[in-house]
Amino acid sequence: MANAEILSIGTELLLGNVLDTNAQFLSLELAKLGIDCYYRITVGDNKERIKLAVRSALSRAQLVIMTGGLGPTPDDLTVETLAELFQVPLILDESTLSRIKMLFARRGIIMPESNRKQAFYPQGAELMQNPNGTAPGIKWILAGELLQRISVNHRSTGRVILAFPGVPSELHAMWQEIAYPFLQGKYMQSTLWSCELKHYGIGESALAEMFAHLLPSKNPTVAPYAGVGECRLRVTAKARTVEEAVAIAQPVIEEIKRVSGVKCYGEDEDTLESVVGHLLASARLTLSVSESCTGGLVSKRLTDVPGSSRYIQLNVVAYANEAKQKLLGVSEEILEKYGAVSEQCAAAMATGVRALAQSDIGLSITGIAGPEGGTSDKPVGLVYLGIATSNCVETKELRFGQNLTRDEIRYGTASEALDLVRMCLMSQEFIRQNL
Amino acid sequence: MANAEILSIGTELLLGNVLDTNAQFLSLELAKLGIDCYYRITVGDNKERIKLAVRSALSRAQLVIMTGGLGPTPDDLTVETLAELFQVPLILDESTLSRIKMLFARRGIIMPESNRKQAFYPQGAELMQNPNGTAPGIKWILAGELLQRISVNHRSTGRVILAFPGVPSELHAMWQEIAYPFLQGKYMQSTLWSCELKHYGIGESALAEMFAHLLPSKNPTVAPYAGVGECRLRVTAKARTVEEAVAIAQPVIEEIKRVSGVKCYGEDEDTLESVVGHLLASARLTLSVSESCTGGLVSKRLTDVPGSSRYIQLNVVAYANEAKQKLLGVSEEILEKYGAVSEQCAAAMATGVRALAQSDIGLSITGIAGPEGGTSDKPVGLVYLGIATSNCVETKELRFGQNLTRDEIRYGTASEALDLVRMCLMSQEFIRQNL
Repeated sequence: MANAEILSIGTELLLGNVLDTNAQFLSLELAKLGIDCYYRITVGDNKERIKLAVRSALSRAQLVIMTGGLGPTPDDLTVETLAELFQVPLILDESTLSRIKMLFARRGIIMPESNRKQAFYPQGAELMQNPNGTAPGIKWILAGELLQRISVNHRSTGRVILAFPGVPSELHAMWQEIAYPFLQGKYMQSTLWSCELKHYGIGESALAEMFAHLLPSKNPTVAPYAGVGECRLRVTAKARTVEEAVAIAQPVIEEIKRVSGVKCYGEDEDTLESVVGHLLASARLTLSVSESCTGGLVSKRLTDVPGSSRYIQLNVVAYANEAKQKLLGVSEEILEKYGAVSEQCAAAMATGVRALAQSDIGLSITGIAGPEGGTSDKPVGLVYLGIATSNCVETKELRFGQNLTRDEIRYGTASEALDLVRMCLMSQEFIRQNL
Repeated sequence: MANAEILSIGTELLLGNVLDTNAQFLSLELAKLGIDCYYRITVGDNKERIKLAVRSALSRAQLVIMTGGLGPTPDDLTVETLAELFQVPLILDESTLSRIKMLFARRGIIMPESNRKQAFYPQGAELMQNPNGTAPGIKWILAGELLQRISVNHRSTGRVILAFPGVPSELHAMWQEIAYPFLQGKYMQSTLWSCELKHYGIGESALAEMFAHLLPSKNPTVAPYAGVGECRLRVTAKARTVEEAVAIAQPVIEEIKRVSGVKCYGEDEDTLESVVGHLLASARLTLSVSESCTGGLVSKRLTDVPGSSRYIQLNVVAYANEAKQKLLGVSEEILEKYGAVSEQCAAAMATGVRALAQSDIGLSITGIAGPEGGTSDKPVGLVYLGIATSNCVETKELRFGQNLTRDEIRYGTASEALDLVRMCLMSQEFIRQNL
């Protein structure tokens, strides 16, 4: 069974200026291939520490995947550091150089001299072409003598280094086109198949306790953890083929779904917005949204889903009271007597946007996301949701704690709003009356 | 000079199910304190590997910061692993146990038995209270004998372990309230002060070449790197005090701003949306947005900025043609003759939303974000922006490559739209006519 280590390179990572999404991408991809990953390491743009990290990764793992440090600037050190570590010269690849020049020429620019270094590779390694940028990657299958040079005890199996640029879209394309097929052929013997069961409206400890009898299981393993405003149970099975792994995991997945009921809203790639979208599309219903404090986030999340134009036609971000009155028909009386952050206003906004968009369901969000605008009566974090259908309007009050940020309150509110639509679409009452 | 290592714990990280934003947060905070961080390590929920990682981190760094593994479930191993590693017993803290029970009681729930383990700490360590959750953290100042037990050569300076829960809001609160003041008192001697100069509309290599003469500088250092759709130059100075560091960095920052001109849109926390918001607020102008393919993302980004209700009153997500006609007054002729994805439609949407919202500026976005909906004539990635003021309407065509995802096209489009408003607000022509 092969195992890998992920090595992220860049001082900008260690200074926190860049979030390392590449490490997550690579972790997900390795899991798909059934390649274990026990360590991820991040080091800065420093030759000695890069060398130490590569050496210790190669002493533990067959496969070392590096990202970053392939750019054109002087602090991009990956290629020359690898060459130094293994004591081989750098070789210029003329065809890569031509390709880089051509990429610049297409944009009407002469190649900056600094990009020339991207056409070099350590002798013995191969270049991996980059369809989305100038920096090629490095694929290096290391033979015995090279490993001895860095004092890694090399017995029968070879070691592989794959080095990718740090720009996510470039890494993704090169991974799919070159690295994944290569690793599949080379290592894939057993498969790790996993399924995440996503829950909304239940905490991590409650979930873990509900399924305490499953947590000690070895194959499949079952692990709970907390996401942003939601919880997940990950069921992972190991077998020779995907089919066998699925068969091992399936009974456990079904048990969890049965026990969790509506609190389990989906699997894997499912999001609250995609599940709501699927429910709307399959019932041929349309939804319209009027947002105040979330400012477009609910609309954005709903339209993140490809094909959402089937059920979303018109949404309104009614930030000002005039917009709520003029476009959504919220009465002056409501705004004066109860204020814009009230269940009455939420109800009127939901009815109003439903009428304006002529949709089956109208959803509204009004609240105080902070950091300003709170009062003792209506503190930051107070939010009202409204949902209107042909024959009823319901509202829901949310109270987020004082410690949450504007972003957290807005995101949490959007999730609650999406879950409200989900629960409405799944309620027997609603189904009887609308379908 | 103290240095630290960040140790992220969790199999969910190594499987890629969770993005490690905590490591970035901690990196940023350590940089503020002037504490160097040369390595970040991620290991799974495995006692032996956690022990190895803690031991090697303590052999290199004075300060080891751990996140994760403090939850109530059986795979949360941090506390018991630390106790095993240093061969000390676990002690129950009764007041913490009472506090956890009370937190559950407030929510009307009896504490699940599994949460009991969160009240234990290794003898000799201290608990750090968690204002946002049940899991306390661990603060452990390690004396000579304990370090000898793990064969770390301890001379004069002590070592410190700080362990935090993996839930970001809990980590953030505990860091600000407990860890930051503690570390500031203990380690802060020299300060690393840095400023990021954010650029839009220029590539990383072009930026690096423009400032090639600054890149070899040692104090301040100047480093370029690519963000999502934008580039940054980071200027970092080291000195005894913040004031001295600022004085060292300032001349370089000013030079960069002078040479970059409008391509440098801001610093540090500035975003395109916050800069646009600032320009609007200081000119007392209002903006309205009508979005099609971005589905609310531009509105969401604009309202991410606290206080955005001063310049945003009403935005519309007009996904369907009917919505564009009815609400924004886009003519049937335009939709039939040119289609919804056309410069004519973008211009009409911008004029229409400006009139509807009675705002000073109207912005529109219409395009094909994919993956479906493209034709040979109008491929995925084709987008038109429109901007309308009292006396003119302008449009801009964008063509994103075929390799970008729906998310990338939508995010890139939103950035271009925000930058269009920024350039408009900064143009001499606009200023003369509107202010």
